[in-house]
Amino acid sequence: MEIQQALYMIPVPISDGEIQNVLPPSNIVIVRQIRHFIVENIRTARRFLKKIDPSIEISELTFYELNGHTPENEINSFIDALRKGHPIGVMSEAGCPGVADPGAKVVSLAQREGFSVIPLVGPSSILLALMASGLNGQKFAFQGYLPVKDNDRDKAIRDLENQSRRQDMTQIFIETPYRNNKMMESLLKNLSADTLLCVAANITSAEGEKIVTKTVKRWRTEGFQLDKVPTIFLFYSLRAPSPVSIRI
Amino acid sequence: MEIQQALYMIPVPISDGEIQNVLPPSNIVIVRQIRHFIVENIRTARRFLKKIDPSIEISELTFYELNGHTPENEINSFIDALRKGHPIGVMSEAGCPGVADPGAKVVSLAQREGFSVIPLVGPSSILLALMASGLNGQKFAFQGYLPVKDNDRDKAIRDLENQSRRQDMTQIFIETPYRNNKMMESLLKNLSADTLLCVAANITSAEGEKIVTKTVKRWRTEGFQLDKVPTIFLFYSLRAPSPVSIRI
Repeated sequence: MEIQQALYMIPVPISDGEIQNVLPPSNIVIVRQIRHFIVENIRTARRFLKKIDPSIEISELTFYELNGHTPENEINSFIDALRKGHPIGVMSEAGCPGVADPGAKVVSLAQREGFSVIPLVGPSSILLALMASGLNGQKFAFQGYLPVKDNDRDKAIRDLENQSRRQDMTQIFIETPYRNNKMMESLLKNLSADTLLCVAANITSAEGEKIVTKTVKRWRTEGFQLDKVPTIFLFYSLRAPSPVSIRI
Repeated sequence: MEIQQALYMIPVPISDGEIQNVLPPSNIVIVRQIRHFIVENIRTARRFLKKIDPSIEISELTFYELNGHTPENEINSFIDALRKGHPIGVMSEAGCPGVADPGAKVVSLAQREGFSVIPLVGPSSILLALMASGLNGQKFAFQGYLPVKDNDRDKAIRDLENQSRRQDMTQIFIETPYRNNKMMESLLKNLSADTLLCVAANITSAEGEKIVTKTVKRWRTEGFQLDKVPTIFLFYSLRAPSPVSIRI
């Protein structure tokens, strides 16, 4: 595959498993031809590059770090190499760049100036969780993080459940791993007993992957332990049944 | 990778390109060990299997067709092989099964009975489009198909734009290819001039992939031609600016 003057969106693994389980071979052929990378975390980006090809000379590559700490006024210069005719790779800390990370900021710049943007296939915990959940995959929303404060989170969960029911839509969201058990408690407190709740933990990890969907009622009695495990939460509330005739 | 008693969610290509551009090698190792497949279309499933491994004996495999024509009362028996201890593969017509297809129905059965469901990595036009759009990837919704009737579609587009602005969310949807130009006309008629609209056509196709984001204002003047091309539409409306103090 010949490399172009383009912004390449390069997924990276989301677990410690084998590269060949989660990335198409041609991704590696492409990555080896790129010299400029916009990355969420330089250290993990270097480790990924060394893993896919130990012969890569890291010192010959240029990295630009794009994350919550990057000053807004620096970002524009990150695509200068592209403006000069070179391909640039964008890599997130884990999974697919441009999704649930700040990567879209440089894509937006490239799009505005008419450059090609080429997304490569790779693991997205959001999408993999949805595929295995059995919940509605014909309509779904990714909500990012819910509020941290108890009352706000409780309200957000109830609002999302109402929306799921009204719009026949699966709700997907994430939490920082050390707050997973707290999130699960809020979910079991606020959701209706017959809402389907999927907990997708350790996705693509050879040993630990566990994607389980049960009614809230069953989760309440059967227990859970999600402490510090990367987890995606999904739920889906069946539409309210159509009004039935009432016998008087 | 050792095969398990599980429902394997197996992505298939979304364009005519090379398999090695879109599927991890281990997917093929897994698929070759499976004898039972639940598929959206038997003919295309057979063609995919022959393509990844010409030595596969198709006549030794069992297929169950799951699509809009499948009687609901037959679906329960589709996972009988799983109940007897065998792995089953689920394949959609294109892309990732369980997303924008009826695949979730068998996943839901398997989840209810406590079987493992293992999602494999592969191309999703929805996710690839989002990655390359530069639109908000921290909050997004996939809406499936919008209504076909002109007035209903116009209203749906305006409602989704309001929701995008209120919830700071990217809206994603699809259309049957021969109606793409009609859809684009509706979008340009109903969306605000400064809303960002991404048109993602022929995703992963080596020659034809084109993922372009522009303001509605620019699309209106610069034209488009999407006739019969597989396309994903995405748009994102910036939040209304915060109220400013008014000088009296």
